[in-house]
Amino acid sequence: MNVSLLGASGYTGMELALLVDKHPVMQLQGVYVSEHSQDADKGLWQLDNRFYQTPFTSDELKLTALTAEQLEQVAKNSDIIFLATPHEFSHDICPKLLQYGAKVLDLSGAFRLKETQVFAQNYGFAHNQQSLLDGAVYGLAEWYADEIKQAQLIAVPGCYPTASLLALKPLQAAGLIDSSVLPVINATSGVSGAGRKATMTNSLCEVSLQAYGVLSHRHQPEIASYLDNQVIFNPHLGNFKRGILATITLKLTAEASQQAIDNAFHSAYDGTELVNLVQQWPKLDQVVHSPKCHLHWQYSEQNHYIVVSSAIDNLLKGAASQAMQCANLMLGLPDTTGLLGS
Amino acid sequence: MNVSLLGASGYTGMELALLVDKHPVMQLQGVYVSEHSQDADKGLWQLDNRFYQTPFTSDELKLTALTAEQLEQVAKNSDIIFLATPHEFSHDICPKLLQYGAKVLDLSGAFRLKETQVFAQNYGFAHNQQSLLDGAVYGLAEWYADEIKQAQLIAVPGCYPTASLLALKPLQAAGLIDSSVLPVINATSGVSGAGRKATMTNSLCEVSLQAYGVLSHRHQPEIASYLDNQVIFNPHLGNFKRGILATITLKLTAEASQQAIDNAFHSAYDGTELVNLVQQWPKLDQVVHSPKCHLHWQYSEQNHYIVVSSAIDNLLKGAASQAMQCANLMLGLPDTTGLLGS
Amino acid sequence: MNVSLLGASGYTGMELALLVDKHPVMQLQGVYVSEHSQDADKGLWQLDNRFYQTPFTSDELKLTALTAEQLEQVAKNSDIIFLATPHEFSHDICPKLLQYGAKVLDLSGAFRLKETQVFAQNYGFAHNQQSLLDGAVYGLAEWYADEIKQAQLIAVPGCYPTASLLALKPLQAAGLIDSSVLPVINATSGVSGAGRKATMTNSLCEVSLQAYGVLSHRHQPEIASYLDNQVIFNPHLGNFKRGILATITLKLTAEASQQAIDNAFHSAYDGTELVNLVQQWPKLDQVVHSPKCHLHWQYSEQNHYIVVSSAIDNLLKGAASQAMQCANLMLGLPDTTGLLGS
Amino acid sequence: MNVSLLGASGYTGMELALLVDKHPVMQLQGVYVSEHSQDADKGLWQLDNRFYQTPFTSDELKLTALTAEQLEQVAKNSDIIFLATPHEFSHDICPKLLQYGAKVLDLSGAFRLKETQVFAQNYGFAHNQQSLLDGAVYGLAEWYADEIKQAQLIAVPGCYPTASLLALKPLQAAGLIDSSVLPVINATSGVSGAGRKATMTNSLCEVSLQAYGVLSHRHQPEIASYLDNQVIFNPHLGNFKRGILATITLKLTAEASQQAIDNAFHSAYDGTELVNLVQQWPKLDQVVHSPKCHLHWQYSEQNHYIVVSSAIDNLLKGAASQAMQCANLMLGLPDTTGLLGS
Repeated sequence: MNVSLLGASGYTGMELALLVDKHPVMQLQGVYVSEHSQDADKGLWQLDNRFYQTPFTSDELKLTALTAEQLEQVAKNSDIIFLATPHEFSHDICPKLLQYGAKVLDLSGAFRLKETQVFAQNYGFAHNQQSLLDGAVYGLAEWYADEIKQAQLIAVPGCYPTASLLALKPLQAAGLIDSSVLPVINATSGVSGAGRKATMTNSLCEVSLQAYGVLSHRHQPEIASYLDNQVIFNPHLGNFKRGILATITLKLTAEASQQAIDNAFHSAYDGTELVNLVQQWPKLDQVVHSPKCHLHWQYSEQNHYIVVSSAIDNLLKGAASQAMQCANLMLGLPDTTGLLGS
Repeated sequence: MNVSLLGASGYTGMELALLVDKHPVMQLQGVYVSEHSQDADKGLWQLDNRFYQTPFTSDELKLTALTAEQLEQVAKNSDIIFLATPHEFSHDICPKLLQYGAKVLDLSGAFRLKETQVFAQNYGFAHNQQSLLDGAVYGLAEWYADEIKQAQLIAVPGCYPTASLLALKPLQAAGLIDSSVLPVINATSGVSGAGRKATMTNSLCEVSLQAYGVLSHRHQPEIASYLDNQVIFNPHLGNFKRGILATITLKLTAEASQQAIDNAFHSAYDGTELVNLVQQWPKLDQVVHSPKCHLHWQYSEQNHYIVVSSAIDNLLKGAASQAMQCANLMLGLPDTTGLLGS
Repeated sequence: MNVSLLGASGYTGMELALLVDKHPVMQLQGVYVSEHSQDADKGLWQLDNRFYQTPFTSDELKLTALTAEQLEQVAKNSDIIFLATPHEFSHDICPKLLQYGAKVLDLSGAFRLKETQVFAQNYGFAHNQQSLLDGAVYGLAEWYADEIKQAQLIAVPGCYPTASLLALKPLQAAGLIDSSVLPVINATSGVSGAGRKATMTNSLCEVSLQAYGVLSHRHQPEIASYLDNQVIFNPHLGNFKRGILATITLKLTAEASQQAIDNAFHSAYDGTELVNLVQQWPKLDQVVHSPKCHLHWQYSEQNHYIVVSSAIDNLLKGAASQAMQCANLMLGLPDTTGLLGS
Repeated sequence: MNVSLLGASGYTGMELALLVDKHPVMQLQGVYVSEHSQDADKGLWQLDNRFYQTPFTSDELKLTALTAEQLEQVAKNSDIIFLATPHEFSHDICPKLLQYGAKVLDLSGAFRLKETQVFAQNYGFAHNQQSLLDGAVYGLAEWYADEIKQAQLIAVPGCYPTASLLALKPLQAAGLIDSSVLPVINATSGVSGAGRKATMTNSLCEVSLQAYGVLSHRHQPEIASYLDNQVIFNPHLGNFKRGILATITLKLTAEASQQAIDNAFHSAYDGTELVNLVQQWPKLDQVVHSPKCHLHWQYSEQNHYIVVSSAIDNLLKGAASQAMQCANLMLGLPDTTGLLGS
């Protein structure tokens, strides 16, 4: 299976490159950056020592500036294309890639929302690919596996939505949420979520636990849409590199019992390998560098409030490894292929 | 003013020792540890290099094991006694200290709740000092200054309750909270909140952002009691030494306007120096090593939800410097005396 | 290949358990703890969420308290035994394990030094297994591969010695070190190097970059012995969980040229996969969770001083993955088997 | 005493602003930034919440873009001028400031070296103020107090040189250093040492313990010059905001005794308050936010090597508070004025 990776010099792109390299049936054809990237013609080993003594030291796998002319060739030569590119770039390039028959997994936000108007409000540019929005499948692997297997275009979910929806959808599916009270999602992300570009926001001297984007973050409509329930979303930046911990408080219906709740989670995830119902509150470091999500919950039968905590690696289950789960499903492989060691 | 400090070898006790040493009118008479403490007879400089080249290198200010016999002498010689001692020890010793006329500031939880039954459920031992509970004043300095000035016994608030109540009480005082929906307090504390004793919980290798004590933490009834409103309280342990960041989501009444909210906060704190209404979301590191609380909020007029974020240093505004604010008020001094540099 | 693991509840033991589980030809027979361990009968998933959804949730792989009676059975059933046990326990148990024919890889310090007197000075108890000391092979995989292949007992090197010797031995082998000036090894280790037991030393509140054990650490004679040159060794504790960075300054002979130095490193490591000669100064996080060592150096032709920097994960290349490299060599496999993903 | 502060928006400038504000006899006249700074006209409270509820919220103390025209006025109105400005800017502006009689404390490197040629090699631009170089006094307060009291222009030492020289000068002054073996200075700095500008180097995701500038850092000639002995200097970037820990290994003369060494340190520092000879190895966090230097050492009478460890806050004793010590001395005040609380 021939694979191309666009946007390979970002943090998500680099994780994807490492995953494709370890994958038993994927063959990486090329790693690309944007036309004027200052990383063009570098090897990934020049950006990150983890690429030493890997195939990425070869000339074939150096970062190539992708020109409009090359695009057709790349698309024709690829069975699978991963886009770890900016939203607008993904939006513009997807139609061209799809026409040559490649399956595309887009890790940007370009195809996650279904309505162009909501999209424009949250992403700041107009969306003119309504038919692709309609056809794109949301790549939350544990919940949309059947659709993913048939899809040409996957909108790989955002990191916060992945952590949030994995915690909330079992309760929603079981009809347990009291929709008159908004679920409160309080989540803290590592700084890699802000991308690789140096800014004051991600300068080590400036980072310290802090809320941001409260009541206005673009992941709020994404969560609400795929949960089919409004939510309050309070993102925070934490003083660490990788990982998201989401702590979610919601009111359940008067009929919700401990048993019904436990059943909801177990029926959602007992057959899966990458969502684990752990017996202590999830600890961030135990999912970092792992493709797993850890979930735990506590319910009060007195006031019908439940607190669910969800932990993922934002660059893996929140991006690269979830994209790989989807790609595996599209290829008819077990979703964990290449993700759990030998 | 003669001051004694019991429980001086813990993290809160050490901060208090430094504050008393810098205070312009306080004279430290002695620093005490429990009778069988392994720190007895040590100088504080042996526990923490910050005590080098300070009065704490003198023999008079070495850590003294407090015996029952000494207690009367200590009480008689002190105008002010700070107790940075375990809950049960404070409970047992307070009546003896008060009978000699000293003013007592207790930083444990022994006198924070008003009902002995709730106390026993949360602290695991019976409370038999109902009259002291009745007389104790809750030392949330910005809210109970008048009562504090008259008090003999101050129950210095817990760290989480300080961060939470400073954010919530203005809204409650202004009648803006919709009490049909429980406020959700999501708070993350540095590890020093767990005390100085070595445990697996505070081992650096084990600490990573994690919820704990959800729906069962003993600070929940303390917050609910002084807010006069039930709350959901989700504490977390963070991968840092000092500080608490609380992010609080609550529904306001349909009449609540941005103007009314802003007025509520400004009328509560414009006259104070130690609660600052900052214009960005509070950043933890900017209050650590400071006696201040930073507050910021965001309101949605659409759904009437507000998110308030509150940051303090758990060892200072959440313990030692708040105790000092109370002591200043009891002595007729400005509450900030000795807390803000020269 | 049947494998048993003794001392499985420590940080090194847990890493080994994960590595054995991923290994293509190893079959884990049992994971053991000491007879009175409080972790006995627990599953590893109760200590660390990373063991969820792995074979370690089975009853066969719960932590078993190892009794004297079981020892013979364990030894007879095992082709390979890893000891991640205390020095004295390894010292006492090794003769018993070896007599049944198992190959033993000891990760303690019990068999690393060759002289019983030096051992006693540094480890605080007498060594009475001179013949095992004589026969034990030092498991620095890149340097003693031939001896390791033939060995019954491997003394897996300490974490600091691994980082130091991989940097120094190429220069020593090439005869480039000016032995009249002592090499200065300045190294900083993550806290996991101090083990899993909670102490004030590894409490998050207490840890901050600090020297310790200067001129007296037990890894100094180990380094000097396998380098065959005295050294100054300055260990430090860093504010992080995993990894060691060693920066080593030494004077070379007047004949040393940049070319000779580069040749020394390349001839030592060009055929290997796990020691990488990287082109920037090694960054700790890029080896953490990896079995690799990263090396880089800078030489001054003016004063003939060279500075070499070496980075490893103390729990992997400094312990568990190096033990696995040795086991692979003993089994006639490539040393990287099971260590580099699929 | 009227004080002006140029370069107030950097990390060092902000610390200086806070120190001047707390100083009992200094009156801050203005805080300035360069002419085209994007921080011009902002209040410091917009850069850092610590400036809330301080005089810096007034219009008089907002950041003012300094034009050539204003310069004369600023110089005439100031008794003391602190320059927390880039090297080249300090170099250019100093002559103009001095001609109006103000005392100038320059925290850049512009006047630290005595030879213009060495300067150009290390700072990358030509120095044409030889007479100011000759007249500038090196502001290492504990060592040059008499010269500082008489000076018009102080070159405040670099952060690494402060930590290194405070450790080394006592041994040099006592004639104990064996100059045939180069002292090895291994130092790790927090990221604030790299300044406030966002770069990949100080991005939280990129920072991890790492050597840099080995055998080529511009602080090496500064240390060697004021020590009057060549040194090897190995700087490192650490994963923390503030502080420098230097661990220095050197060979002493054959006559050096433990007694002579102890005497050297005590005679250098027993009369001072800000250099403390602590009894454990210095821990970085215990000097951060403090104007102190902590020193500790270990000597081997066997091989005559000594290891000295030195810890400072790079922004305080390594910059702002050391500048304030010097200013105090220039004003005839105790050097600790305004630095140690009330």
